[in-house]
Amino acid sequence: MSQAAIWGVLDGELITDFPDIWSKTLVYSEEHGSILIIPRERNMTRFYIELKACAGTERRAPGQTFVMQQARNIMAPFSIDWKYIEWFGRYQVGQRVASRFADAKTRVFLSGDASHTHSPKAAQGMNTSMHDSWNLSWKLNLAVRGLAKPDFLESYEEERRKIALDLVNFDYEHANQIAGGDAVALAQNFKANVRFISGIGAEYGASPLNKEDPADVSFMAGYARPGCLLPPAKVTRYIDSNPVDVQLDIPMLGQFRIFLLMWDVQQAAPFLATFCHAIADHDAFVSKLSAAASASYAAQPRLGSAEDVYIRPERYTAVSHLFTFALITTMAKAEMEVSDLPAMLQDSRWTIYLDDVPEQDTRGQLCTDKWLGSLEPGEVAIINVRPDGYVGSVGRWNSNVDDSGVDAARWLDEYYAGFMQIPPSKK
Amino acid sequence: MSQAAIWGVLDGELITDFPDIWSKTLVYSEEHGSILIIPRERNMTRFYIELKACAGTERRAPGQTFVMQQARNIMAPFSIDWKYIEWFGRYQVGQRVASRFADAKTRVFLSGDASHTHSPKAAQGMNTSMHDSWNLSWKLNLAVRGLAKPDFLESYEEERRKIALDLVNFDYEHANQIAGGDAVALAQNFKANVRFISGIGAEYGASPLNKEDPADVSFMAGYARPGCLLPPAKVTRYIDSNPVDVQLDIPMLGQFRIFLLMWDVQQAAPFLATFCHAIADHDAFVSKLSAAASASYAAQPRLGSAEDVYIRPERYTAVSHLFTFALITTMAKAEMEVSDLPAMLQDSRWTIYLDDVPEQDTRGQLCTDKWLGSLEPGEVAIINVRPDGYVGSVGRWNSNVDDSGVDAARWLDEYYAGFMQIPPSKK
Repeated sequence: MSQAAIWGVLDGELITDFPDIWSKTLVYSEEHGSILIIPRERNMTRFYIELKACAGTERRAPGQTFVMQQARNIMAPFSIDWKYIEWFGRYQVGQRVASRFADAKTRVFLSGDASHTHSPKAAQGMNTSMHDSWNLSWKLNLAVRGLAKPDFLESYEEERRKIALDLVNFDYEHANQIAGGDAVALAQNFKANVRFISGIGAEYGASPLNKEDPADVSFMAGYARPGCLLPPAKVTRYIDSNPVDVQLDIPMLGQFRIFLLMWDVQQAAPFLATFCHAIADHDAFVSKLSAAASASYAAQPRLGSAEDVYIRPERYTAVSHLFTFALITTMAKAEMEVSDLPAMLQDSRWTIYLDDVPEQDTRGQLCTDKWLGSLEPGEVAIINVRPDGYVGSVGRWNSNVDDSGVDAARWLDEYYAGFMQIPPSKK
Repeated sequence: MSQAAIWGVLDGELITDFPDIWSKTLVYSEEHGSILIIPRERNMTRFYIELKACAGTERRAPGQTFVMQQARNIMAPFSIDWKYIEWFGRYQVGQRVASRFADAKTRVFLSGDASHTHSPKAAQGMNTSMHDSWNLSWKLNLAVRGLAKPDFLESYEEERRKIALDLVNFDYEHANQIAGGDAVALAQNFKANVRFISGIGAEYGASPLNKEDPADVSFMAGYARPGCLLPPAKVTRYIDSNPVDVQLDIPMLGQFRIFLLMWDVQQAAPFLATFCHAIADHDAFVSKLSAAASASYAAQPRLGSAEDVYIRPERYTAVSHLFTFALITTMAKAEMEVSDLPAMLQDSRWTIYLDDVPEQDTRGQLCTDKWLGSLEPGEVAIINVRPDGYVGSVGRWNSNVDDSGVDAARWLDEYYAGFMQIPPSKK
């Protein structure tokens, strides 16, 4: 998918009478090509300059002086000069994706620039590369601890190669639009892809990790959907009454987050009691996983960081090193006490949230409504969130039905049994 | 105004079954006194402990063990212990304000703890002290450069001693409410004073610096009032389309900010032309002040900072070292061009703002409406803002009236002539 065009890049401080260097701007000259202008820090401006007329020796290695002259040609009749140029580069746009991101035994992995190349114009290079590594790192942690099934690491290629393909497809279109000079089409292309470019639209396909229940599509009602990032929402942290961004509030310690959502904690009390009892049962898979994780983290603790003294990881690992349980309710603070909750939720007191600040949300929505679309009175929803913030699965139960808490615990076990395991005992 | 009560302070990590240590909490025991609980970083809790029973030798120097026991007595039946105590202190609440904040020649100044003492319970000590110094520093800068009238520095005592008195009056009430144990009265006292406690309610009286026009009380219509901090508002910066907090966007370089507000820049064009022409006139006081400031800053430049490479002070001092001009309009971006403005405003291109993001304001208000209450079509308002962010004066003109721009320039001269001067030439 390589294209003929060669582009030059100049970072520097401009002397110009062109008025629009402080917004992202595209200038198109039919004769000389396009320039994409990106405002930078320290009074600098980045120019991406299409080297349309580039031929002969210049094609192989166009020099800085040549590129500066191309920029002047494109920008005419506006004048362009530089106080200084801090960096000069050139590249040929090429959209390529490696055929494999891991070897057959999942011992060697490719990520970042080694696995995908594309144009730099939508700021996706470093961002996508970091997400490659982020996706891989939590999976490696679980695999190395023996807590994941043998084929678990294959999900790295499955998920990230899809994103790389999404990216180069977008980028091919986008780079052509930039070179094409149709302002309206470019703006539409950007707008249509802004969700992907921002990162929130990088979505994974269905798999045991991102488990869609074909018999129940109610998970499609809200924006918390398997394979998607947990949508941003505002809630009040119960314990200290601080408003928080709930999707970011629980520090990322390599653990899953299990959110329980309900309108009325009192009404859901029997459900919560049976649910907590069932998952604490020694035969429950989730319980066995937690015990195995405890042993693993005792033998090989998390690497600490200097910020831990502020972050307090122990607030989120009191119940389990593998699962942080969280509760979100629209109930008024005065109507509930932590001490009335089952012990497991009392030990999760830093992750109990009140869904009572919709006015702080950009859409004015309750977290419950945004994530779930709607929730019936008496209904309890559970959202499994992966260590990287992606939704793993979503389930709903009528808390008035006997044993619904036990059902929910079984559902949890089934989800985690899809890709996790109790480490085989060493011989 | 000293009170009998002695208080102890303990910072440490608690072991307790009391559930509410993560909010600011007051616990009152009729027999033993009060504890004010303040959650802290690093899992710590601050206790302010009233030492009601304190007598004899303990009165003079109650020890840490004694204070810990007092805390246990007050908190019973909840249990209190400490994993460790990081800091222990004690103090006797005393509300005092120095009779003078400066000597008669304004060569020696008192600020911070040297000028006012009060209880620590509303977090006003360090905050008020920094504002003392902030108020003094920009005034000293102008005085030392010879740009301020001889009696200018007297405004330091006038303004900051008023705040100190406001503070101790509030604090006396507040400390008594905390010791008094009436939860409802304390909450009301706090609520009634939250504007002052937050800092936005620290207001200065009328003076040449905070100039109220007794003949025109229209400045009372909005929240931008002489002697008050410029109210927070959101606008879009014209040059790069970024939404900004307009009250903070212009870096504080010791200069005044002169905001021009209007609905329609085209309609106001004749006003802007005559205004800019009039203040650029060599005989205009503002123009002479700018020239004097240029000479002063050439001889004694601002101290630079490492962040200047990002902040770019030159963007705000291109017109004058003493005044940054700014324009705020509700006009659509597509309908105005910087190059159509008078040269002085073209040189102020980083401080041209579009008042078009009321949805980002906490009250959903336009900046123009919040600051001015209302503005008529064809009306232009000017707000002089002091180097410390306080409103100095507010004026309004009908831009359709001939010479209204000249009137506005004269009004500006009159305001600054109230406390500024052209430095007397050295002999």
